[in-house]
Amino acid sequence: MTPDEFRNYGHKVVERVARYLEDVESFPVQSQVQPGWVRGQLPSAAPDEPEPFDQILADVDRIIVPGLTHWQSPNFFAFFPANHSGPSILAELMTAGFGVQGMMWATSPACTELESHVLDWLVDMLALPMDFKSTSLGGGVIQDSASSSALCALLAARERAGAFNVKRGGLQKGLTCYASREAHSSIEKAVQIAGLGSDQLRLIDVDDQFALRPDALEMAILKDLDEGRHPTFVCATIGTTSSQAMDPLQEIGAICRRHQVWFHVDAAMCGTAAICPEFRNFQEGLELCDSYCWSPNKWMFVNFDCNCMWVADREPLIRALSIQPEYLRNSATERGDVIDYRDWQIPLGRRFRALKLWFTIRSFGVRNLRDRVRNHVALAKEVEEWIAADSRFELAAPRNLNLVCFRLKDGDRQTEELLHRLNTSGMIYLTHTRLNDKFTLRLSIGQTETQRQHVERAWKLIQQTADF
Amino acid sequence: MTPDEFRNYGHKVVERVARYLEDVESFPVQSQVQPGWVRGQLPSAAPDEPEPFDQILADVDRIIVPGLTHWQSPNFFAFFPANHSGPSILAELMTAGFGVQGMMWATSPACTELESHVLDWLVDMLALPMDFKSTSLGGGVIQDSASSSALCALLAARERAGAFNVKRGGLQKGLTCYASREAHSSIEKAVQIAGLGSDQLRLIDVDDQFALRPDALEMAILKDLDEGRHPTFVCATIGTTSSQAMDPLQEIGAICRRHQVWFHVDAAMCGTAAICPEFRNFQEGLELCDSYCWSPNKWMFVNFDCNCMWVADREPLIRALSIQPEYLRNSATERGDVIDYRDWQIPLGRRFRALKLWFTIRSFGVRNLRDRVRNHVALAKEVEEWIAADSRFELAAPRNLNLVCFRLKDGDRQTEELLHRLNTSGMIYLTHTRLNDKFTLRLSIGQTETQRQHVERAWKLIQQTADF
Repeated sequence: MTPDEFRNYGHKVVERVARYLEDVESFPVQSQVQPGWVRGQLPSAAPDEPEPFDQILADVDRIIVPGLTHWQSPNFFAFFPANHSGPSILAELMTAGFGVQGMMWATSPACTELESHVLDWLVDMLALPMDFKSTSLGGGVIQDSASSSALCALLAARERAGAFNVKRGGLQKGLTCYASREAHSSIEKAVQIAGLGSDQLRLIDVDDQFALRPDALEMAILKDLDEGRHPTFVCATIGTTSSQAMDPLQEIGAICRRHQVWFHVDAAMCGTAAICPEFRNFQEGLELCDSYCWSPNKWMFVNFDCNCMWVADREPLIRALSIQPEYLRNSATERGDVIDYRDWQIPLGRRFRALKLWFTIRSFGVRNLRDRVRNHVALAKEVEEWIAADSRFELAAPRNLNLVCFRLKDGDRQTEELLHRLNTSGMIYLTHTRLNDKFTLRLSIGQTETQRQHVERAWKLIQQTADF
Repeated sequence: MTPDEFRNYGHKVVERVARYLEDVESFPVQSQVQPGWVRGQLPSAAPDEPEPFDQILADVDRIIVPGLTHWQSPNFFAFFPANHSGPSILAELMTAGFGVQGMMWATSPACTELESHVLDWLVDMLALPMDFKSTSLGGGVIQDSASSSALCALLAARERAGAFNVKRGGLQKGLTCYASREAHSSIEKAVQIAGLGSDQLRLIDVDDQFALRPDALEMAILKDLDEGRHPTFVCATIGTTSSQAMDPLQEIGAICRRHQVWFHVDAAMCGTAAICPEFRNFQEGLELCDSYCWSPNKWMFVNFDCNCMWVADREPLIRALSIQPEYLRNSATERGDVIDYRDWQIPLGRRFRALKLWFTIRSFGVRNLRDRVRNHVALAKEVEEWIAADSRFELAAPRNLNLVCFRLKDGDRQTEELLHRLNTSGMIYLTHTRLNDKFTLRLSIGQTETQRQHVERAWKLIQQTADF
């Protein structure tokens, strides 16, 4: 494809994406295809000769679009938002066009420096601890996801806790980890990957708001200490996946300090809310943490992947993850006056992801980011009131921000049937969880174009569908 | 940004990228900025109010482009190719526009099924073992990088080797790993991350072609067995980073079978060559491996990130990496008739990366992919001949495909000075390694638009610059 052909087809793809943004509401939110349908449309072998680009675009419409679940639909209320925006999409295009590798400062200085800089901006935008700034001992890095950030944090904790050098000598036994029963599954996965084994993960009891109980945490730590183990890593959550519960950071942080345990805070979805001063109460105590992560690719209009991770002290992270073969040696690294982000992450290679964060923040301006987030939270509050006013339903957890958990009072079977009918209608898409061992619907509001009309329509549909 | 604004600015970004493809040769290949220059151009705080998109685009030209090292320049001969192409860039744009999450089949069936399907195509295109097909017990998955594939392979090996359940119980001691001294640093990093500790990685001696010596491997395994350890994981490389050495898979595979050790093969850069039947000799014995990976984002015109990983048996991989919280439960998963790729990788979330592989293969056609690769190899062969004919230089390793390793006979200091002068000229970019403990230049040919004229010019420049 010559540059001129790229121009020609590029304009067509831009048009196609613009049309998708316009008509995404016209598709069933959850894909209605059966397993195997997409593969059934595809030829069994790759073509030997080039195929016309227009043919490929036509196949996208014919084969791919029906097989998509439309995460960007304003009627998508499932899982968590994974919203995007025009500026972010166009930055991704530019990132792909430049095609640079950001593994080290030397392999593309702008890729590293823009990342450090925008993550410093975010420290101010979100009122995060000053320790997180790249101009201090800490600093920020973009990971692909909160799962990877949790793993990197755990590896740094493991290294810091090691009575000897874990990187070389391997794990010693008895390193223990702690998170609430409601923490994300990626914490357990990280504990498994790092070789500690999930038997060493203590799932701490929660209170009636599904938040971690600090007293139970400290008891578990003391028990492990008593029995000769080494408490290594605590993960608190700002906004659990199931119900958006907020763990009490201040108290958890104090316990971690007291027992010298690494304190990681996962705010994957809810971190965005801190753009608004009125929602910053949830992050009180963050100055006690060792590492923090939050995903602009969930609720800040930056397409996946983009998880921001900060550490208060970069040294243990780099110690855990750095490796320096001859073929990557260069003078900038050796003078020590640059950041090489390969030493802050699992893989070696990395894309220029800071570009989409920069484009998005500048295009919206902080004020507009704030307005959108406030609007989502206000809509969730309204839904909460509507549910409370309908005697067939009950709220299943306190609402903190943009997630409402509820169910039919009639019980699990009825609630599950309601969910099935809603999702197969194609008009909206919700997912479920279990709270207090009851089947519970989650209505998560955070797609870029979700407005009051969508939420109102969703609630009417839920009310009507519940009459069966 | 409304869909119409997206159209408007989208066309501008397409134009900007097209222009970059046209004029990438006009920039110094390696960025000439000093540490801190890029940050120095950026305001210290994020803007409260939206900024015009045209202003952002102007800043890309003013601040970002000077800070890029131009990996897409046809004069880029450093590290490894990280080539891209128009169809791949446009697929990335479409992936960002759709903004779907591919963590499970249910969250976007097309994302999963296209991935399985195209990876099956590739099994045929590259003449890989039939066990790798998703219709067999094995199957393929797209990872972000070869580093992550190596880690996942090691985790599967660790799980299979565990005398008890490693995921739950944690690592037992004495699991040992093996790779040649020339293997990629990501193997050592994986061994560290998985908690084994790099003291448990045996770096096996190489022969005079820098390929792993099977006799030394078997001796190391026997010694570990003798001393009560558990040989767990062997990594062989098709094309080492330093010199593109080819480890003898057939013999290594036989040893792994004999001692029931997991056999991983890393062909990150060179895997592409197997599109050409005449280069498939390097992968003889691949049918003995348990896992294999190779990166279309290096030498097959697909922009980073896109590493293809296959396993001969998917069960241990999934056993090592699956986790099933309530909020991700769904009927398709429970019926067991779909693949959920979150269980084949470290993170939970995943982009729709199969789209760019599909676009690229179809747009080029297998024939054109093959022609480009053949041309790169032919050019490397010419360079090799030119070097051999200049008495000031010596070849430092046998050339297998598209990498030529050489140095000045005058020694390290002179060779290092030559490299410095070449790279600061901005006209070409090379990197170095050490072979037989001598400073060695690497000339890697594989960028999409690299033609004979670029290679010729590079060699002339090297010859002229060597006269100091």
